[in-house]
Amino acid sequence: MATQAGRKRVVVVGGGFAGLHAVMGLARLPVEITLVDRRNYHLFQPLLYQVALAVLSPAEIAQPIRSIVRAYPNVEVLMDEVLGFDTTERTVHLRSNAKLEYDYLILATGSTHSYFGRDEWAKLAPGLKTIEDATEIRRRVLLAFELAERQMLETGSHPPLNFVIIGGGPTGVELAGAISDITKLYMARDFRHINPSEAKVMILEGSPSILGMYPPELQAKARAQLAALGVSMRTGAHVTDVQPGYVMIGEERIDAVVTLWAAGVQASPLGKLLGVPTDRRGCVLVDQHLNPPGFTEIFVCGDLAHVEQDGKQVPGVAQPAMQMGDYVARRIARLMAREHGSDGTGVEQGFRYFDKGDMATIGRKAAVAKITWPFHAKWSGFAAWLTWLVVHIYFLIGFRNRIAVFWKWAWTYLTFVDGARLITGSQELPGWESQAGVQRFAADQPLDIASPKTR
Amino acid sequence: MATQAGRKRVVVVGGGFAGLHAVMGLARLPVEITLVDRRNYHLFQPLLYQVALAVLSPAEIAQPIRSIVRAYPNVEVLMDEVLGFDTTERTVHLRSNAKLEYDYLILATGSTHSYFGRDEWAKLAPGLKTIEDATEIRRRVLLAFELAERQMLETGSHPPLNFVIIGGGPTGVELAGAISDITKLYMARDFRHINPSEAKVMILEGSPSILGMYPPELQAKARAQLAALGVSMRTGAHVTDVQPGYVMIGEERIDAVVTLWAAGVQASPLGKLLGVPTDRRGCVLVDQHLNPPGFTEIFVCGDLAHVEQDGKQVPGVAQPAMQMGDYVARRIARLMAREHGSDGTGVEQGFRYFDKGDMATIGRKAAVAKITWPFHAKWSGFAAWLTWLVVHIYFLIGFRNRIAVFWKWAWTYLTFVDGARLITGSQELPGWESQAGVQRFAADQPLDIASPKTR
Repeated sequence: MATQAGRKRVVVVGGGFAGLHAVMGLARLPVEITLVDRRNYHLFQPLLYQVALAVLSPAEIAQPIRSIVRAYPNVEVLMDEVLGFDTTERTVHLRSNAKLEYDYLILATGSTHSYFGRDEWAKLAPGLKTIEDATEIRRRVLLAFELAERQMLETGSHPPLNFVIIGGGPTGVELAGAISDITKLYMARDFRHINPSEAKVMILEGSPSILGMYPPELQAKARAQLAALGVSMRTGAHVTDVQPGYVMIGEERIDAVVTLWAAGVQASPLGKLLGVPTDRRGCVLVDQHLNPPGFTEIFVCGDLAHVEQDGKQVPGVAQPAMQMGDYVARRIARLMAREHGSDGTGVEQGFRYFDKGDMATIGRKAAVAKITWPFHAKWSGFAAWLTWLVVHIYFLIGFRNRIAVFWKWAWTYLTFVDGARLITGSQELPGWESQAGVQRFAADQPLDIASPKTR
Repeated sequence: MATQAGRKRVVVVGGGFAGLHAVMGLARLPVEITLVDRRNYHLFQPLLYQVALAVLSPAEIAQPIRSIVRAYPNVEVLMDEVLGFDTTERTVHLRSNAKLEYDYLILATGSTHSYFGRDEWAKLAPGLKTIEDATEIRRRVLLAFELAERQMLETGSHPPLNFVIIGGGPTGVELAGAISDITKLYMARDFRHINPSEAKVMILEGSPSILGMYPPELQAKARAQLAALGVSMRTGAHVTDVQPGYVMIGEERIDAVVTLWAAGVQASPLGKLLGVPTDRRGCVLVDQHLNPPGFTEIFVCGDLAHVEQDGKQVPGVAQPAMQMGDYVARRIARLMAREHGSDGTGVEQGFRYFDKGDMATIGRKAAVAKITWPFHAKWSGFAAWLTWLVVHIYFLIGFRNRIAVFWKWAWTYLTFVDGARLITGSQELPGWESQAGVQRFAADQPLDIASPKTR
């Protein structure tokens, strides 16, 4: 694509909700856009936990970025990684050694897990941010049942099927509900020696309450719905260590055949690479136009931006990310119009997050929803779950996926059949030690408690 | 599941077409069946190449074995690996240390790639037998275009997009047709700097003809259809070396951004573990009842069995595997009936493969089909492709998958959109060397042929 002389060059880094919305908003302007992402696909992250729990396949919640923007001849996609910026020369440096010049730069690289400085926990307790994370969680949860079945057949006992989720925000609650569901509904009849419905799911939350961002009455509803699914919750529980097969809360040890991480997030390191002020999680402090101080040509959107509104930080979820992307596109259009002497209208007063509400699902047919548009309401239970379903299908980018996901959900819901339960990759699990080639849960019991038994 | 006293115990090793058909046939008899597989899913292998080329998702061609046999209380599934047999004690030894006793043993562990003793080629030229293989091929093919685009942007040149497939049997032909299709149809408009339709696909076949098992006139049709897709074919081409970025045929070097392996197969090692005679590929030599010599209680089915019929070896594909599984179930029923003094009927004359025909697809709307039932015919082109489509959808195990796959095919066919094009895992490719963090195709050109260029 030859750059048309005189056209403004916009570089967008990150193909998530914020970056894509910015690109879509800008694509009809006379600008040349380059979208850089390390991945070749856009991921519909709100449904990632359904991949982790084997309800959906990765391709159903991901769409190649090239096919999303294919219709726009002025949008170029690069699968590459940003290594640095020169804000004086206005260039972006890529891993491939190429430099991209920009007139406007939009950064929307989101966030990743934070293990609070204990990065060695990452292998023991995977989090849920990428497709690789999701298939790794799927592998671990499913494999735990298979290994327990094997051990039961051989020794007549198996470790307690404790699934421990560290973190009680929306992701932790969704994972807990989904694990509980698949063990009780889909796997119950699948094993002969172990009873998957005996599996226990536990949420460990450091703060005083789960789903802390929701109103207290919805928190209470969520607690009740989780308890009905058999999920136990510990609040004020600060995890002090994660080990193969167990976690520690101070002196207390909690056994876990699988441990998952849903506790902390930190911003992508690109904010710091830019050399502008960030908050303690690495989010870039921006003004009302989403500019970092001193740079009217640089915009930061989505989870990477620290935006305060009415005394609270705008949350790092999909809705504000989309709205920020839209805003930046409008703002750039306005700046360009002003350069050409036009009045323009509108976006002088700055970005304002319009909160339509929040939702978190709890298993197969319950959810909590705080709705603020088009009317105010607090819902829980099945109605909230249906709302969640419709909203999420509606926002799934890509028509084919929308239909396929709906069909799969309907089918799974009606039949309890679940066809994405594939264990791919390695067959090792932390806590299950290989001794002489035999994998046994070694974290909480001696290996010789029972004499080997044949059927 | 408590084993019912006095019931015959059948151990089936391998949950492919042969093993599953044997289990299904036996499940209604008064026997206790244990099905052992290293994987937790049955794979519909004939469509694996469509996962490799990003048309289908893994879960659409795989089904958890536990959910397939869930309805049979006398079938137990173990995800485990067989390490050995004691044919005197009639036990199977598993990696988990458990021993399974059997009255009848059915071995159906299939085949894997053979690199003809050059196992170091496996990393450079992946084959197509497992889901992991398929996602690895998908990753390599898609990543080659992304890396070429990056290199083009930076240096103004990129390596020729040569995809080399070693082996011209059905798998090689299907891969070649599919790569040609996706580059010409689905990716053509996706890049700004490279032209994916310039990609060249080449099949290297050691024997004198591609699709050697088909009649000569169908071979000619296949060659014509492949040529129409732009696939070049070299027969009598013995690959003597595989290196990152190229392959050697004697002294001749053929550059390859991606090399794939579809040349040799060898039987699973379990035949040799059994200590019975095998052919040079490790297939167990069996008699007309599929018993290895001297063991009337052991059966070998599917790709692992060497069965001669009318002077030819029965091919290692899905149809004979299913028929062998069915036969063994009938044979065991007959042996049990005879023990109880009943006459039984039927299966004394031994297994006979009933060949309904063979098909190989060539890209998006062509195929060759040799049909021998319910009538004799040799088809090629679109009619053969439609037949292939119907037959494969019909045989996909699992109702949900059947619908989902049909929908996806129809959608892909009509719209040229292709939504499973995800690059997951590493971003390294053999032949593309990282120098100072920059990946460039280093196999066939100096790294400094062009001066870095910015847009």
